[in-house]
Amino acid sequence: MHFVHAEAAHLPLMLLLVFGTAKIAAELFERIGQPGLVGEILAGVLLGPSVLNWVQPDAILSALAELGVMFLLFRVGLEIKGSELFKVGKTAMLVAIAGVLLPFAAGAALSVAFGQNRIEAIFVGAAAVATSVGITAQVLAVKGLLDERASQVILAAAVIDDILGLLVLAVVSGMAESHIDIPGLLTTAAIAVAFTFLVARFGTSTVRRWYPTIERRLAARESQFHFALICVFALSLLAVYVGVAAIVGSFLAGMAFSEASDRRMQDLAHGATELLVPFFLVGIGLQFNLASFRETSTIIFSAALTLIAILTKLIGCGLPALVYGRRDAVRVGIGMVPRGEVGMIVAQIGLGLGVVGAPVYAAVVCMALLTTLVTPPLLNYAFRDCKPQVAKEEFGLV
Amino acid sequence: MHFVHAEAAHLPLMLLLVFGTAKIAAELFERIGQPGLVGEILAGVLLGPSVLNWVQPDAILSALAELGVMFLLFRVGLEIKGSELFKVGKTAMLVAIAGVLLPFAAGAALSVAFGQNRIEAIFVGAAAVATSVGITAQVLAVKGLLDERASQVILAAAVIDDILGLLVLAVVSGMAESHIDIPGLLTTAAIAVAFTFLVARFGTSTVRRWYPTIERRLAARESQFHFALICVFALSLLAVYVGVAAIVGSFLAGMAFSEASDRRMQDLAHGATELLVPFFLVGIGLQFNLASFRETSTIIFSAALTLIAILTKLIGCGLPALVYGRRDAVRVGIGMVPRGEVGMIVAQIGLGLGVVGAPVYAAVVCMALLTTLVTPPLLNYAFRDCKPQVAKEEFGLV
Repeated sequence: MHFVHAEAAHLPLMLLLVFGTAKIAAELFERIGQPGLVGEILAGVLLGPSVLNWVQPDAILSALAELGVMFLLFRVGLEIKGSELFKVGKTAMLVAIAGVLLPFAAGAALSVAFGQNRIEAIFVGAAAVATSVGITAQVLAVKGLLDERASQVILAAAVIDDILGLLVLAVVSGMAESHIDIPGLLTTAAIAVAFTFLVARFGTSTVRRWYPTIERRLAARESQFHFALICVFALSLLAVYVGVAAIVGSFLAGMAFSEASDRRMQDLAHGATELLVPFFLVGIGLQFNLASFRETSTIIFSAALTLIAILTKLIGCGLPALVYGRRDAVRVGIGMVPRGEVGMIVAQIGLGLGVVGAPVYAAVVCMALLTTLVTPPLLNYAFRDCKPQVAKEEFGLV
Repeated sequence: MHFVHAEAAHLPLMLLLVFGTAKIAAELFERIGQPGLVGEILAGVLLGPSVLNWVQPDAILSALAELGVMFLLFRVGLEIKGSELFKVGKTAMLVAIAGVLLPFAAGAALSVAFGQNRIEAIFVGAAAVATSVGITAQVLAVKGLLDERASQVILAAAVIDDILGLLVLAVVSGMAESHIDIPGLLTTAAIAVAFTFLVARFGTSTVRRWYPTIERRLAARESQFHFALICVFALSLLAVYVGVAAIVGSFLAGMAFSEASDRRMQDLAHGATELLVPFFLVGIGLQFNLASFRETSTIIFSAALTLIAILTKLIGCGLPALVYGRRDAVRVGIGMVPRGEVGMIVAQIGLGLGVVGAPVYAAVVCMALLTTLVTPPLLNYAFRDCKPQVAKEEFGLV
């Protein structure tokens, strides 16, 4: 009967290892006053190829991780009113633009300084660009700080950053294949901007009109929650089709439901999120492979790239936010630091095209992991004197 | 950039197709007074190879389906007190035994009557044995009927049925490889019985002792829900290791938490379940392939096998339940009819060993699907004069 066992045991074993280790690590980190999610990411490093090699990233784990970050951004969106984001729109735009230009220039310059070729330099610059807002959003959500002005600026800027990142990626991919299609590029940009703007602007009122009807008119149970899930999946898919990340769609879906949803919707979304988020966090840690860092030059380049990545977002995103005072500028700068999976995808494309070497890829993964790990403690410190305005219990703190 | 799109779109597209179609079908079925989950299974047939061929069963979908049925049984377990199951234990034991012997004998006899060889006949008999309790549990849970005596008998008998099914499978696999290891068989049986009995008997009191401490002593948020999830995964894994289905472990985990858990735990579990169950139901429908039914003999054999499968459970499981009156006997008999994925697994093993032909496999899949489809309407009818005793709102009816 062993052929039955091996296959049937695979899923529950993986679930237990990933979820159990993540939650034990989270508990240990909370006890020493550190954010639990840093522990969960490090649980991924522990389970991954660098240390125990008990869990390999596979299709199932990737899917659960992707679902996890989709639900994370959906839940964050539920707490955010679109109108609030539009209020900080101009500042967020400047934050996003400076936060893209500076890392790109500095990343590319660093690459050149390390003697890499022009195409590689462009890919390093591009990989340093895109903020991955999941980690910051989770920290702010858990601490009930999503209503803070700095949080609103971070979320709005992250959405714009994603569109800019799309354009950078399109240009860079075009350069690697040595043809840039300017009209195509402009069309891509226009569609992405139109999609994001239209959903952010009209999503809330559309949902507010349909939401009560659905409960009243449909025969099936929990139809409102199912309707919300269908919107999450549909907008995530549309986001991918227009070229931005799926999580931008999930976030916009959450925002569209923010004014219509009730406590029950939030609890149900919360249950799914609590199950899935550890797979996202552990998945980040699993990407890291210590074996890639055998050569001293790789280590030095990784350290320099990480430092540059942190400083350029701090400065690039912090300066435009100075209009809201020094404190908010620091908060915004820190919140935009994590690169997460987006930078890794850029580097993977370069690797796939054969224009980026393995050491550069390893350095980008290291940068993505470290920028993600330093953010939660820094955010905790920067927001230390904020009183949570969102009901903490919604995120299970009570 | 199309290489980015295709990969990134895969998951949200699949999620939208499966979840969206399932929920639209559920709504249509509810409107014509039929159980929504029948619609969701048929949505799988529609999306699968027989009709549209838009969704192929892959590793990700199987994992979500498996998670879905695990959470389904966990949520059902949360509503069940172990002590109640032990009260109906003796009847449930007889229900399970007669409900295994009769389908096995009739299935094997039918196979012989259709001129199939001895080994094939044994596999057909074995595939007709195991009740898949997920569908029945979902119907009873949604209608708030889990407190009914007939429901308790069904759940207890289904757990025992699973252990007996394990033994049948072990014997049959041994026969196919023409050696039966009697001491090994007895050990397997003893371990499976001991595991199930010990968790059912002592799970509740263990959890009741630890549950409040966890909330008090741990620093991380939602630690009780995380603790419950870890128990679900751990018991599901243990169940697989001792040889029974993972969902038996999930059910036992739910039952262990039934007396300690509060409303919040149920809401969180409910959110995860609502997200995942459609993937389980659609997954059942996806297994069906109309192309396997080109020959008339396959169609006739499938129809006969389905009829035998329904009648033998009705009679075999109904008769011992007559001690509780005719009405409960009919309810128990119907509740034990669905075979679901367990019969398919048996046939797959036979297919893998090369002792079962493709037409027989197709017939087993057809039988599994049809027994699953007829159960919900029959259950609705059999339980039509029961007043729901469990708070319906827990399953979202209010």
